Amino acid sequence: MTWPPLREELRGLAPYGAPQLSLEQAPVQLNVNENPYPPSAACVADIARAAGEAAAGLNRYPDREFVELRAALAAYLGQDGGRDLTPAHVWAANGSNEVMLQLLQAFGGPGRVALSFAPTYSMYPEYARDTLTEWVVGHREEDFTLDLDHARDLVLERRPSVVLLPSPNNPTGTALPPEAVGLLCEAAGDGLVVVDEAYGEFRRAGTPSALELLPDHHNLVVTRTMSKAFALAGARLGYLAADPAICDAIRVVRLPYHLSAVTQATALSALRHTDELLAQVDELRAERDRTVAWLREQGLTVADSDANFALFGTFDDRHAVWQALVDRGVLIRETGPSGWLRVSMGTPAEMGQFRTALTEVMKEMS
Amino acid sequence: MTWPPLREELRGLAPYGAPQLSLEQAPVQLNVNENPYPPSAACVADIARAAGEAAAGLNRYPDREFVELRAALAAYLGQDGGRDLTPAHVWAANGSNEVMLQLLQAFGGPGRVALSFAPTYSMYPEYARDTLTEWVVGHREEDFTLDLDHARDLVLERRPSVVLLPSPNNPTGTALPPEAVGLLCEAAGDGLVVVDEAYGEFRRAGTPSALELLPDHHNLVVTRTMSKAFALAGARLGYLAADPAICDAIRVVRLPYHLSAVTQATALSALRHTDELLAQVDELRAERDRTVAWLREQGLTVADSDANFALFGTFDDRHAVWQALVDRGVLIRETGPSGWLRVSMGTPAEMGQFRTALTEVMKEMS
Repeated sequence: MTWPPLREELRGLAPYGAPQLSLEQAPVQLNVNENPYPPSAACVADIARAAGEAAAGLNRYPDREFVELRAALAAYLGQDGGRDLTPAHVWAANGSNEVMLQLLQAFGGPGRVALSFAPTYSMYPEYARDTLTEWVVGHREEDFTLDLDHARDLVLERRPSVVLLPSPNNPTGTALPPEAVGLLCEAAGDGLVVVDEAYGEFRRAGTPSALELLPDHHNLVVTRTMSKAFALAGARLGYLAADPAICDAIRVVRLPYHLSAVTQATALSALRHTDELLAQVDELRAERDRTVAWLREQGLTVADSDANFALFGTFDDRHAVWQALVDRGVLIRETGPSGWLRVSMGTPAEMGQFRTALTEVMKEMS
Repeated sequence: MTWPPLREELRGLAPYGAPQLSLEQAPVQLNVNENPYPPSAACVADIARAAGEAAAGLNRYPDREFVELRAALAAYLGQDGGRDLTPAHVWAANGSNEVMLQLLQAFGGPGRVALSFAPTYSMYPEYARDTLTEWVVGHREEDFTLDLDHARDLVLERRPSVVLLPSPNNPTGTALPPEAVGLLCEAAGDGLVVVDEAYGEFRRAGTPSALELLPDHHNLVVTRTMSKAFALAGARLGYLAADPAICDAIRVVRLPYHLSAVTQATALSALRHTDELLAQVDELRAERDRTVAWLREQGLTVADSDANFALFGTFDDRHAVWQALVDRGVLIRETGPSGWLRVSMGTPAEMGQFRTALTEVMKEMS
């Protein structure tokens, strides 16, 4: 037996995570789709105050049902397409990661199938692996959209208990068309359709949120995160909206007291500052549209993006391009199909440095 | 198909957790082994300051490897029996719950066995269930100690990949004798022996920590929590010390960025106030010894306890006793073998209310 005695399927695997470089190594960090704008001073002060208030009672376990936070999340979603959502429609955990793991712990498992369409978020197969759920992948078209006939046929054929549909998709930025969600919810029967809207707030005008469809489909789950639009990646707060029966069922597999009192207090503080925190979303959407246009002007192929990042290419040796950008202090992400690279939207100054560096690199390589 | 489509094995199960009553319903809460003493004002202020500092950078993901926190935990364990522990020997997660789940995700799984000895912590079988690990339970003696021959034989027979040994045991309070850990580590071969010292700091003088044995057994894992002695249940910080190869292997199954920046900052603040926070441990140990002695004076049977709680009985109708105590504003826990009840150590005033209430109830029922 090899040491340590890891489960056979896990041997030799690397832990998930983007390569991390220090700010000294790469001052312009555009690799993990973070929001470049820190929380406002008022929000920071409110978090400190709320954390102190929570700290005074930390000898006690936190509210296991985090009712106040669920109410605040339901109210926020009501501003962004949700209708008649109550705390019972909302669930939250330490990042969307944990929300997804709990969904597959509850509704996946041996003998069951989780389905998505590649290229897509690279953590999904890990949730399936860790819950012993069979992982099935359909394909996206060359422009990363979904062929709805293909998608429906695959759902009808494989009868997945969970369909994972990121919209906008990561790493391509592609949003689902409005008709896709309804069609796949119907095809899935009693299986759940999880629309992962981690980047939902960055969608372009005219792209609806799947939240609007919740009243029509009892098997629809819409997940969100505070990591991106809310600029709260460090606080680890993912959540979902769904039929209360689904939220209730997740409670069987959640670890008791999984959300700390300080996490609950931090998220509640940030939600009190929603308008301030989301004020930068429009700026980031504009930066995204400018970046996509600029990349196309350079003769590159760029996926249409409804997110705070852009996938562009294609390069014969994308790793060489990635490395040459790092050498110029700009860290982006080597991800997606072969030949493509992904850049997160930073501040205008950071995007300027990205454009300068990429121009140099492309000239050097041509 | 029933709705929602929970995994078959989970249907009809209740979420784990002690019944919760409000402070209005039960002002004396002695049911979940919380520390009755809140963090000091200095510690609270430090947590607020550190949370504010973390909040200013919350738009960025937290340190995925939480190196500073691991160093601080290693240093603390060095004061309590650990020898030559480095950050690489330490792992942490959102509560011991998540540490245990990660251990079974990595080292358990289908075709593998997790073993413990009943009566023991009632979450263990849930970790096994959620990781599809076969759950095998040996028995403890009538006084809740471990028959080491029985324990070794069962380990040799079932070859568990993980043995879970709480010491002190929950809900009985029983500590393992020093020779047990070495003997079972040897019997387990390449299987892991996890000594769960959630209540380790409350052990009586002369009871060693399994931390002392880490250098002798590469398959020994010692878990701890900040929930109990550190009075930080609300912050959700569990951790372990083990061979660095074990910590490294867990990284394959951990969700990336599982520990928020605020959680890391909170735990680091508390560790800077270790002496202050642990100052109440002696008082709680004394209260425990007084409570055990008093319960015995009432003619009750009480398990020897190295923890911050006492298991006592036996009652023909323990639920009636529990309810009669609740009716008097005292909430304890109906857990452990049939006929027994568990009371957590509160402040001297709270324990006085418990004694008064129990005296009345026993008189009424005799």
